Amino acid sequence: MNQPGAVLRVLGLDPGTRRFGWGVVERRGTRLTHVDHGVIEEGMEGPLGPRLLIIERRLDEAIREYQPHAVAIETLFFAKDVQAAAKLAHARAVGLLVAARADLPLAEYQPTLVKKAVVGSGRADKDQVALMVKALLGLTELPLLDASDALAIAITHVRAPASNTAALALALATASKRRR
Amino acid sequence: MNQPGAVLRVLGLDPGTRRFGWGVVERRGTRLTHVDHGVIEEGMEGPLGPRLLIIERRLDEAIREYQPHAVAIETLFFAKDVQAAAKLAHARAVGLLVAARADLPLAEYQPTLVKKAVVGSGRADKDQVALMVKALLGLTELPLLDASDALAIAITHVRAPASNTAALALALATASKRRR
Repeated sequence: MNQPGAVLRVLGLDPGTRRFGWGVVERRGTRLTHVDHGVIEEGMEGPLGPRLLIIERRLDEAIREYQPHAVAIETLFFAKDVQAAAKLAHARAVGLLVAARADLPLAEYQPTLVKKAVVGSGRADKDQVALMVKALLGLTELPLLDASDALAIAITHVRAPASNTAALALALATASKRRR
Repeated sequence: MNQPGAVLRVLGLDPGTRRFGWGVVERRGTRLTHVDHGVIEEGMEGPLGPRLLIIERRLDEAIREYQPHAVAIETLFFAKDVQAAAKLAHARAVGLLVAARADLPLAEYQPTLVKKAVVGSGRADKDQVALMVKALLGLTELPLLDASDALAIAITHVRAPASNTAALALALATASKRRR
């Protein structure tokens, strides 16, 4: 594994109905690179439907611009606050829909697994995650929290054992295209 | 109110991730007409993302075909089964998104209000709702349960006091177009 030519680019999503974080991370062999990240928050007030539409458009743009090979998102978690969880599910659905429409594989990770993969402990707080994301990607400043969570999910996926196979398959496909 | 020329056509939605009901009802003055209904269930197995995509495409088609003036959907309700509610929220989000994209007003009604509006009691069961929907719309047979719930929501909206104003506004707009 860790083919020098194996490039895997992942769009990580941290859904929310007021602030929706996204981040694109690339792995080339063992090297991680930060591609871009952002938080969708402009115009995110008023009725839920138009907000979902804003999320959809921005995610579609990010996919068109960065051409990721996969999308990574947190599994549904069932907080004590059921109303918040159900609202979150609306935003999350847009992520799933956009990924399916672009025919991109979707990877889901539990929040504790993301923290463990990035910080080394499933109990890490958001600030610790942001600090590790900054260090791992060599960023000059801390990304906004929603974006750093999205980058953390993307990092979790590009480093996951399964994504080695995916990267290898991509490398082979690219190599075979080049040969033609 | 109840202008003879006032036509209001509403798409009612009963979201679900395995079966998604929809129904279109028209009101002309005080007269209710059934336009069409259906249940999205084909291909609704496997991962959630592709299922949301199927829902999206079918709802887009229904909007293109029937040109409703508004979309009506149940409010989020918070069942004891949190996991089921969160899944439902994913499907519901697609309804909200499609309505927002088509720039259609979205009306939300609580399940008990829908039952009260259609059957006369907020505690009516699904079979009673289906029977009343059949009677009110003069259907020759009972629609499938998911579709009858969707039709019930559409009926609730076309009969709601607020929609009288909406229908009147539409009638006036249509009349003023005709005058030009």
